[in-house]
Amino acid sequence: MNDLAKRTISGALFVAIMAFCITFDRITYFCLFWCIMLYGMREFFNISIGESMKLQRAMAILCGLCGFLAVYFLECYAKASVTLVSVLVSCCFLLLLAIPISCIFRQNHEDHGNLSYIYAALLYIALPIALSPKLVMDCEVFDGWMLLSLFIIIWMSDVGAYAIGTALGQKPDSRKLAPSISPKKSWWGFWGAVVIGTATAVGLHYLTWLPFSLAHCIAVGVIISVGAVCGDLVESMWKRYFHVKDSGNAIPGHGGVLDRFDSSLIAIPLSCIYLSIFGLI
Amino acid sequence: MNDLAKRTISGALFVAIMAFCITFDRITYFCLFWCIMLYGMREFFNISIGESMKLQRAMAILCGLCGFLAVYFLECYAKASVTLVSVLVSCCFLLLLAIPISCIFRQNHEDHGNLSYIYAALLYIALPIALSPKLVMDCEVFDGWMLLSLFIIIWMSDVGAYAIGTALGQKPDSRKLAPSISPKKSWWGFWGAVVIGTATAVGLHYLTWLPFSLAHCIAVGVIISVGAVCGDLVESMWKRYFHVKDSGNAIPGHGGVLDRFDSSLIAIPLSCIYLSIFGLI
Repeated sequence: MNDLAKRTISGALFVAIMAFCITFDRITYFCLFWCIMLYGMREFFNISIGESMKLQRAMAILCGLCGFLAVYFLECYAKASVTLVSVLVSCCFLLLLAIPISCIFRQNHEDHGNLSYIYAALLYIALPIALSPKLVMDCEVFDGWMLLSLFIIIWMSDVGAYAIGTALGQKPDSRKLAPSISPKKSWWGFWGAVVIGTATAVGLHYLTWLPFSLAHCIAVGVIISVGAVCGDLVESMWKRYFHVKDSGNAIPGHGGVLDRFDSSLIAIPLSCIYLSIFGLI
Repeated sequence: MNDLAKRTISGALFVAIMAFCITFDRITYFCLFWCIMLYGMREFFNISIGESMKLQRAMAILCGLCGFLAVYFLECYAKASVTLVSVLVSCCFLLLLAIPISCIFRQNHEDHGNLSYIYAALLYIALPIALSPKLVMDCEVFDGWMLLSLFIIIWMSDVGAYAIGTALGQKPDSRKLAPSISPKKSWWGFWGAVVIGTATAVGLHYLTWLPFSLAHCIAVGVIISVGAVCGDLVESMWKRYFHVKDSGNAIPGHGGVLDRFDSSLIAIPLSCIYLSIFGLI
């Protein structure tokens, strides 16, 4: 099987699984996002600290899970289960304190600076994913269509960046976006992402998948496309720093989980902030 | 002036300023803790990433301030100013996303791994300090005596560790606490910290500065003393990793701000978690 066929099949399967899990039920949504957090953090640890600090890695992943569940139950049952939320938040903070304390008992202190990558994974990967329940829960009702719409905007803006960037941005005189990080990305690609992303948001508005006014949909489209491009560059920057090409090999032909979700790690929390400010979620 | 006199005078001044600022008013408390956060983070950045990433350092410090203010207003006015809190939380998240994005535009990507120390400072220094308003606000009423009591327990447990450790723990056969990090600290010192810290908590219970039952005061005393020893060792570990003796020279004879507050960075959030679980704050 050639590479393009492998990429197409695994890409289609990926979209189908994402769409099913996000919209079907809160359990499928939870399993999917928990896997993304788990594998995303594992990949980040593998490329940054390798095999060391296994205990601290596990505690960080558990801390992310506790935070994720805390936001979920806060959105899910509001005041009814305030005890559960405060227990989860306490666990989250306890783990956060236990991570440096547990390092005291390690024999090797030469690689203690690796602890900072554990903190980075928590803020760069776990926190954005832990915020996602805000986008799927409306009081006690689970509704994943809005979150799926945001992912569709991200995917379409990726397609737009690739299509316009390939068609117009590869001439020798076309201005590059960030040549020191990603030599191929051009400003044409950036504008392609913004235009296609925003057009997709407008389309989703008329499909009523995005339940906001047209103006808000346009704003969300712009924010998500810009966020997606930034997210992509930030992950490229990490990979360049660690001298790796892909974050992993979880998805055949597409690299690792982190490579697939790099855009969302910036785009989804950005849209979350926008929608919160305007009281739309 | 010899070293001991300098240490004594600046130590006494330090305790007097702390006690005044924590108990006088919410403004003095805020100024003090904001300075601790600002200088603590600056010192951590100075020893970890030096002069690089000035913009990202500034954004991290601002992010810490927003989080601190958000917790303060959440504790202070409860539901009345929910808009203010959500604006501050949004600023906090926006800055958190802006930190990696701003790195894209840097010319030098060789030191991109330093970004992880920015994240570390946020979770290791800013977060514990940002939680402290939970300990001084009781609905709309400011009351700093409980927080001061917790600091007194920390200081007394430090004195206990030093006194008992010097008296009993310096024999050749006395077991060391963590010889690879801090060769002088002995288990005798640890037990000294726990005993004196707990005794201080009991004393503060009878002074009614700590408004909890005797059992809770004993528990808080044990938690704070153990947390203080751990916090001390965690900071020693960072300093050993960065090959520095002191984190700075802000307090004459006592090193930097971080050297003075290392114990509190673990002890205060630990006690915060304990008191939250039992509904005492």
